[in-house]
Amino acid sequence: MIPLVITLSLASRSYPIYVGQHLLTKHNILLPYLSSKQIMIVTQENIASLYLPILKAALADYPCDVMYLPNGEQYKNIEQWQGILEKLIEQRHERNTTLIALGGGIVGDMTGFAAACYLRGVNFIQIPTTLIAQVDAAIGGKTAINHASGKNMIGAFYQPRCVIADIDFLQTLSAREYRAGLAEVVKYGLIQDADFFQWLEANMALLLSKDESALLYAVHKSASIKANFVSQDEKEQGLRSLLNLGHTFGHALEVANHYEGILHGEAVAVGIIMASFLSMQLGWISSSDHQRIQALFDKIGCMKNLPALPLPSDFIRFMQHDKKVEAGKVHFILLKGIGQAIKTSVVTDQQLKQTIEWAADLMVNV
Amino acid sequence: MIPLVITLSLASRSYPIYVGQHLLTKHNILLPYLSSKQIMIVTQENIASLYLPILKAALADYPCDVMYLPNGEQYKNIEQWQGILEKLIEQRHERNTTLIALGGGIVGDMTGFAAACYLRGVNFIQIPTTLIAQVDAAIGGKTAINHASGKNMIGAFYQPRCVIADIDFLQTLSAREYRAGLAEVVKYGLIQDADFFQWLEANMALLLSKDESALLYAVHKSASIKANFVSQDEKEQGLRSLLNLGHTFGHALEVANHYEGILHGEAVAVGIIMASFLSMQLGWISSSDHQRIQALFDKIGCMKNLPALPLPSDFIRFMQHDKKVEAGKVHFILLKGIGQAIKTSVVTDQQLKQTIEWAADLMVNV
Repeated sequence: MIPLVITLSLASRSYPIYVGQHLLTKHNILLPYLSSKQIMIVTQENIASLYLPILKAALADYPCDVMYLPNGEQYKNIEQWQGILEKLIEQRHERNTTLIALGGGIVGDMTGFAAACYLRGVNFIQIPTTLIAQVDAAIGGKTAINHASGKNMIGAFYQPRCVIADIDFLQTLSAREYRAGLAEVVKYGLIQDADFFQWLEANMALLLSKDESALLYAVHKSASIKANFVSQDEKEQGLRSLLNLGHTFGHALEVANHYEGILHGEAVAVGIIMASFLSMQLGWISSSDHQRIQALFDKIGCMKNLPALPLPSDFIRFMQHDKKVEAGKVHFILLKGIGQAIKTSVVTDQQLKQTIEWAADLMVNV
Repeated sequence: MIPLVITLSLASRSYPIYVGQHLLTKHNILLPYLSSKQIMIVTQENIASLYLPILKAALADYPCDVMYLPNGEQYKNIEQWQGILEKLIEQRHERNTTLIALGGGIVGDMTGFAAACYLRGVNFIQIPTTLIAQVDAAIGGKTAINHASGKNMIGAFYQPRCVIADIDFLQTLSAREYRAGLAEVVKYGLIQDADFFQWLEANMALLLSKDESALLYAVHKSASIKANFVSQDEKEQGLRSLLNLGHTFGHALEVANHYEGILHGEAVAVGIIMASFLSMQLGWISSSDHQRIQALFDKIGCMKNLPALPLPSDFIRFMQHDKKVEAGKVHFILLKGIGQAIKTSVVTDQQLKQTIEWAADLMVNV
């Protein structure tokens, strides 16, 4: 099958997102996006052992430097980012070099931010190898590193030249990472596509078995929705913020745990059911819609064995440090229905506290 | 007199450059460019003691955080940049905050790069207080920090919302910094405006005495030429590179001296007469044009008491680490006449060596 192509439209910075199988082997789609013979691949040991040979074979005529990052969100920091820059300087990479991110969201975010800043910006390509990166992180040019007091506090909007999302990579992804990625897939249905949400309810068993046709559909659908949001609002001045459903809660959870013991997708899953509960409390969605949402996440099973929730007072403090604070007020993306997200700050402290207590109980019992 | 305004045209990111006197006191031009009540002023102790009260008075209704950077190009580094970001996080600056750079090129470059990266980009304003910053560094959105092995290796193209160039600030500028700034003014004449070069030859004594009319004319003319180049080629893919006349040599000199004992403008002055000598060697400019250029820099007197030049082999090694290397080849901006710069790499090692040796002799004797 020929690869599916989604165009992310941003005038002169538009770029294609390829979704398919055997993209690096059968299809020679990488080469037109290189800007010279100079290349640095940024990856991680575990990914490299599986997929670096395939990428290097696709780049047979190109000498490539390879830089390895450690595993774990706690290493998405300024020191590791500086390490990429040091290596580029050491190896004398020039303005027309290309950085290739081969890995998950952490690799993509850090490589993109290094590409944004090296010599004031060089070419880069995203080859996401996790589900969460293929449907979300690798698309849309948000690059960043974390700070101890907040996620993605330092970064840039910097678009890649292309994104190559090969679902074959997902066959070796751990069950835990795969399930965490499905949380972001569900997010797209909840935000603006009730039909897709219904499809996910009907086909979750197939998706969990990594059925190729189901996966191709889900990745293509998710990437299309994401690309569409980004095309309309690259810098997140309005519409794009809806993509943060579950993220205000989720980021606070990640920060509270120092980015350890909980994957980003898992934190987002918890955040989404909290947003759903809060929406129900506000009378915006029915109890049966809330049940459907919770049931789908139960089926995915991405909320088991997570760290306990912080106390409400701590949880709220962590949320206030997030990027999404405006005039001292925390903003939430909540639901007016399945397939209909909105941004709001009309949440009382009491409602917030109840939501956190409800989620804390739930987490003990999943 | 009402302020002169130059518009730097970059579609939705266009912005005004104000040139004049009493800009913060008599004219309330700052306020429309603030995006909320949150402000962080980044400056240095010596500048703050002179001008921070004026700026704070202009912002009487706004609570301002103030961050101080140490003096000296050797502190334009990743640690100090990180310090600005830490302070923004600590003081809980939000997405709609405004950073104001009050100072010379170092303050402007670092503040701009911090603004580019904090929460993926916040609003910033340039208030340049040195001549070099008013005519060059504060205009055009080049922001960066240095790396031990090269100047401005890490940075971003990130435009301010406005530039406020008040020539009153220049009255307290040290003679040394002022003369170094005049080197960049001369640069604009050499690159594309022979009439301006001739005006500078005729009026250098007035300029050296900081005559207000002469200064207004020179700053406005220089800023206009700079803005015009940037409007045509923001990301330096062609035309804008002509502004680097003297900079390939100059950056190497700065790196060789670890950014100490030589100001940027002084290094550029040496770099420009080296470019002039090399252009004469290539038969591109006459010996009398070269003499005119050297004579004008002698009049400015910005090449006295500088560190000795490195040996040619070291000098060339430092140049090869510069950003302007393409396919391993060093590129030079040279002159085809006064008012006519071009980019070239047709320079032999022998010609380069002779130029360095000539300049080394010259520096001993100025």
